[in-house]
Amino acid sequence: MCRFLAYRGEPVFMDSVVCAPRHSLIQQSLHAEEAKVATNGDGFGLGWYGERAEPGLYRELRPAWSDENLLSLCRLVRSPVFFAHVRAATGTATMRANCHPFAYGKWMFMHNGQIGGYGQVRRRLEAMLPDTMYDARAGTTDSEIVFLLILMRIEQGEAPVEATANVLRAVKNFMQSAGVTEPLRFAAALTDGDTITAFRAACDERPPTLYVCERPDATIIASEPLDSDRSCWREIPKGAAVTVGPQGVHVEELFWSVAEAA
Amino acid sequence: MCRFLAYRGEPVFMDSVVCAPRHSLIQQSLHAEEAKVATNGDGFGLGWYGERAEPGLYRELRPAWSDENLLSLCRLVRSPVFFAHVRAATGTATMRANCHPFAYGKWMFMHNGQIGGYGQVRRRLEAMLPDTMYDARAGTTDSEIVFLLILMRIEQGEAPVEATANVLRAVKNFMQSAGVTEPLRFAAALTDGDTITAFRAACDERPPTLYVCERPDATIIASEPLDSDRSCWREIPKGAAVTVGPQGVHVEELFWSVAEAA
Amino acid sequence: MCRFLAYRGEPVFMDSVVCAPRHSLIQQSLHAEEAKVATNGDGFGLGWYGERAEPGLYRELRPAWSDENLLSLCRLVRSPVFFAHVRAATGTATMRANCHPFAYGKWMFMHNGQIGGYGQVRRRLEAMLPDTMYDARAGTTDSEIVFLLILMRIEQGEAPVEATANVLRAVKNFMQSAGVTEPLRFAAALTDGDTITAFRAACDERPPTLYVCERPDATIIASEPLDSDRSCWREIPKGAAVTVGPQGVHVEELFWSVAEAA
Amino acid sequence: MCRFLAYRGEPVFMDSVVCAPRHSLIQQSLHAEEAKVATNGDGFGLGWYGERAEPGLYRELRPAWSDENLLSLCRLVRSPVFFAHVRAATGTATMRANCHPFAYGKWMFMHNGQIGGYGQVRRRLEAMLPDTMYDARAGTTDSEIVFLLILMRIEQGEAPVEATANVLRAVKNFMQSAGVTEPLRFAAALTDGDTITAFRAACDERPPTLYVCERPDATIIASEPLDSDRSCWREIPKGAAVTVGPQGVHVEELFWSVAEAA
Repeated sequence: MCRFLAYRGEPVFMDSVVCAPRHSLIQQSLHAEEAKVATNGDGFGLGWYGERAEPGLYRELRPAWSDENLLSLCRLVRSPVFFAHVRAATGTATMRANCHPFAYGKWMFMHNGQIGGYGQVRRRLEAMLPDTMYDARAGTTDSEIVFLLILMRIEQGEAPVEATANVLRAVKNFMQSAGVTEPLRFAAALTDGDTITAFRAACDERPPTLYVCERPDATIIASEPLDSDRSCWREIPKGAAVTVGPQGVHVEELFWSVAEAA
Repeated sequence: MCRFLAYRGEPVFMDSVVCAPRHSLIQQSLHAEEAKVATNGDGFGLGWYGERAEPGLYRELRPAWSDENLLSLCRLVRSPVFFAHVRAATGTATMRANCHPFAYGKWMFMHNGQIGGYGQVRRRLEAMLPDTMYDARAGTTDSEIVFLLILMRIEQGEAPVEATANVLRAVKNFMQSAGVTEPLRFAAALTDGDTITAFRAACDERPPTLYVCERPDATIIASEPLDSDRSCWREIPKGAAVTVGPQGVHVEELFWSVAEAA
Repeated sequence: MCRFLAYRGEPVFMDSVVCAPRHSLIQQSLHAEEAKVATNGDGFGLGWYGERAEPGLYRELRPAWSDENLLSLCRLVRSPVFFAHVRAATGTATMRANCHPFAYGKWMFMHNGQIGGYGQVRRRLEAMLPDTMYDARAGTTDSEIVFLLILMRIEQGEAPVEATANVLRAVKNFMQSAGVTEPLRFAAALTDGDTITAFRAACDERPPTLYVCERPDATIIASEPLDSDRSCWREIPKGAAVTVGPQGVHVEELFWSVAEAA
Repeated sequence: MCRFLAYRGEPVFMDSVVCAPRHSLIQQSLHAEEAKVATNGDGFGLGWYGERAEPGLYRELRPAWSDENLLSLCRLVRSPVFFAHVRAATGTATMRANCHPFAYGKWMFMHNGQIGGYGQVRRRLEAMLPDTMYDARAGTTDSEIVFLLILMRIEQGEAPVEATANVLRAVKNFMQSAGVTEPLRFAAALTDGDTITAFRAACDERPPTLYVCERPDATIIASEPLDSDRSCWREIPKGAAVTVGPQGVHVEELFWSVAEAA
C-alpha cells in the first residue's frame, strides 16, 4: 500500500502541496493514518508537467522524508498538473524503476493497492501487451503493467474510465481463473497532462482510501486529506471514477463493480 | 533516536540475531516499540569481527528493511562479535558516513540518543580532538565525535568505562556553559573486538531503553528485547555500564550520574 | 560490455583477488584495457560461497571504485569460489537487480557481452521460461533471461556446456528470424558452487576477451589478466568452454560455433 | 579533478547546455579530454535559479551519465543562471553532501582542483570560519570550506574577486607553513544568482583548464569546450578572474598570482 496525491489547477510551487501542509505527503510517508501500513518508505516519485507535452519525473529509492533533492525541486518548480507518490512495497524490489508515477509519452499514472496473487496472473497480463509496450516496461511492478494495459486500450480508442474498467475486469477474471483468493484493491490516478482521472475500487469491502478537495484555484486528489480542514475533503465512493479537467470535476459512481463483474 | 544490538558469543550466522527473531532489529527498523519514534529508516549499519583485528563494516543510507544485501551478508557470514544499528536521524543528513557503527582501527562504536543543542557545543568538542582524529572524521554526526573523544582517552590509558564517563561529563559541562536546556541522552556500545562495553545514561528521566540477555552461548545487548521470551531480557539501569568479555558479564551501576556531575 | 572474474581454489580473503592486484577488477572498473569501453561504472556485484549451498550476493548501483562496503566485505570474507563483476550498461537501467552476478538456488551466473537487437527477441526468449523462472526475474537484462534459460535446461538434465550452447543457438536463431544484424557476443561464467564453467563465444570476429590463469592453489578466469605476470594468463579461444572443477581445468574447444549453427 | 559549466543568459531548458552538446558535461563525465582523469563518476550536481532568490540543487552520488532524473529535470526546467558539475573525488567520500555545487543563502559555488596536503591545513581553515558557517558545513570537502571562507569575506564587505584572492592567499600561506609541497590548483565559479565570477589559478604551471564562450544570447564558462566549434571558446588565462554579469563579460588578468604571494 502507498499514499499519493494529484494536483490540477493554478500553477503553484509544488512544495505548497507536497511538503508544506500539516499532513503533507511527506508527513504521510512516515505517518500515514488511513493506510494498512503507517510507513511508506520504499521510494517515492514526483511527476510534473511544464512547457513540454511529456512530464518530468523525479523518482528515488530512498524515503521521501529524508531527500533534500525533493525539497529543492518542489520549492523551485511550478506546475499546473503534478503527481506525487510515496511507496510501501508489496513484494517487488525497492528501486527507481518500481517507483510511481510511471510515464509513457504524455501519459502519467500512479497506483495504490494490490493485485492479489499477482505472480499467478502476471504472465497472462504481460502476454496482452503489444510489442512496443512489452519493451517499454522498465520495472517489475504490477502497477506498471496495469498502466500499459490501460494505455493500450486508450490508444485503441477507449476513454480513460472505460479503459481502466476493462483492464480491471480482465485482471479480476484472470485472478478468478487462477483461483486467487486475495483481493484486488485499486486506487489510482491517470493523466495526459490536461485531464486527471482518479479511481477507487476493490473486490472486497476495503478499497484504499481516496479523497478529493475542490477549491476555487485547484482540485487535489489524495489518499488522505492534507490538512485538518476536513470540510474541503470529500471521500471518493468505492467504485467511482473522478474526472478533473477543463470542464470541472465530475464523479461517475459505480464505473465498475467487481461484484457485478463476478 | 535509533535502535541497535550488540552480540558476543559463539560465532553464529548473523541473520539468526539480526533478521530472524520475531522482534528483530530489522523489524524494529519499521516498528520500534520502546523508542520516541517507531520508524528507524534513515540508514543502517552492520559491523563484525572476523579473522582480522579490524572489523568489517556494511553501511547503507536506505532503510534496513528493504536491503537485500544485508540479508545476504547476514545469512552467509558468521561472527563472534558484531554490532547492528538502524538509524532515525536527529538533524544530520542521511548518508553512509553518518550511519553507525563507526570504526577506527580495531575499535567499533554505535550510539542511540542525542546531545541536546549539539550545534552549540560541537565546535568545542571538535577542538578537543587530536589532529589524527580530527582528520579521521568521515561524517557529520555528534556520535562520531563522541566515539573519537572516547578513543582519545583510551589511547591515553583510561579504561572504556572511565573514558566514556569523562567524555560525557565534558559534553555535559559544555552544554551547561552554553545554556543548553535540551537533555543529553545516551545509550551506546563500544568494543575492541573482544570485550563489549555498553552504556545507558541521561541527564533527565528518559534514558534510551537498553536490555541485556545472557544465554549459555552468547550475550546480547539490545535497545528492545528481540523476542517475546522476556525472561532472558534484563533492563540495564540508568547510569549503568555493562561489560561483556572473557570474564563474563559485569554491570557497574551508577558509572556516571549527570546529577552528581552537575 | 563489462569486466568480470571467477575464482576457484583455496579459500582466500577476496580482496587478494578482487582489489589488490595491479590490474584488479576495481582498477578495470575505471581503466579497462581490452574492452570496447574503458569505464565500467554502472554498478557491480560480488557473489561468493560460504558454508551454505546458496551464495551470498552484494550488488550495488554505484561504481565499484568508490564503494567502501565492497572493500570491507572483500577484506573480511574468505571464500573458495566467488564471482566479481563490474558493469557497463548496454541499454538497461543502472539498478541493483540488473547487476551481475545473478543467483538462483545454488547457481550463480555472470555475463559480459550483448545480444544484438535484444528488444526484437526478448519476448520470444521470455516465452520459453517456465512459470517459476518467469516469476524469478528481478531485473530487466538480457543476461538474467539467458541465465534462467540455461538453468531450465540444466534442470531438464543437460550439462552446463550443452545447456549453454543450446540456449545460445536458440538466441541466435531468434535473432536471425527477426532479421537482427547486430552481433551476439558472449563471455560468461556459471557455477553451482563447486565447478565453474566459463564460455567465450561470438557470431563475429570480436568475442569479449577472456583469460584463464592456473596456479597451484587456485584457478582464476578473468576478462583481463589481473597482473603484469602474463606468463600465467592464457587466452581462452573463441568458441571454447572452460570447466574448472575438482578434476582440474578442462578446455573444450569449439563447444559451439555460430558459423556452424547458421 | 572534476569538470563543470556555468551558464548565464536567456532562460533555456538546461538540457540544451548540460546534455545535448556533442561534448556535453554528461559526455565529459565519461570522457573528459583535458583533465588529469578521464572519468568523472563520483557524483554530480546541478544548481539553478528560478523565481526565488535561493537556488535549487539536485545532487546525486551516482554518475551523471546514468541518471534518468537528471535528464528529466534538465529537459523540463528553464533557467537563466545555472551550474552543473561532475565529480572525480580526490580523497573524500562519494556522497551527496560532497557533490558540487554548494549553496548557502542566495550564493552558489563549485570547484575543480585540489588543495595540496589538505589534511595538514584543514584544521586551521575550519578554525577561521565563524560559528554560523562552521555549523553550515554539510559535507567533508575542502571545496565547501573554501566556499564558506569566501562568503565570510563577502559578508564582511569584500567583492567576490577580492574575497576569493584573499582566501586563496591564506590557504597558500597555511600550506607553506605546514611544509606542503603538493600544489594548489583552483578553477571555480561563484554566483549570487545574478553575476557569475569564475577563477583559474594554480601555484604551479598546471592550472585546471577553463574556457569562456560569449554568444549573443548567453555566456557559458566550462572546463572544456562543449562543442567542436572552437571559435567561440576562449581559454581563461591562468591567474584570471572572469565576471559575467549585467554589464557583460569582464576578464581581470592576474587577479592573484601565487608566485607573487609566495
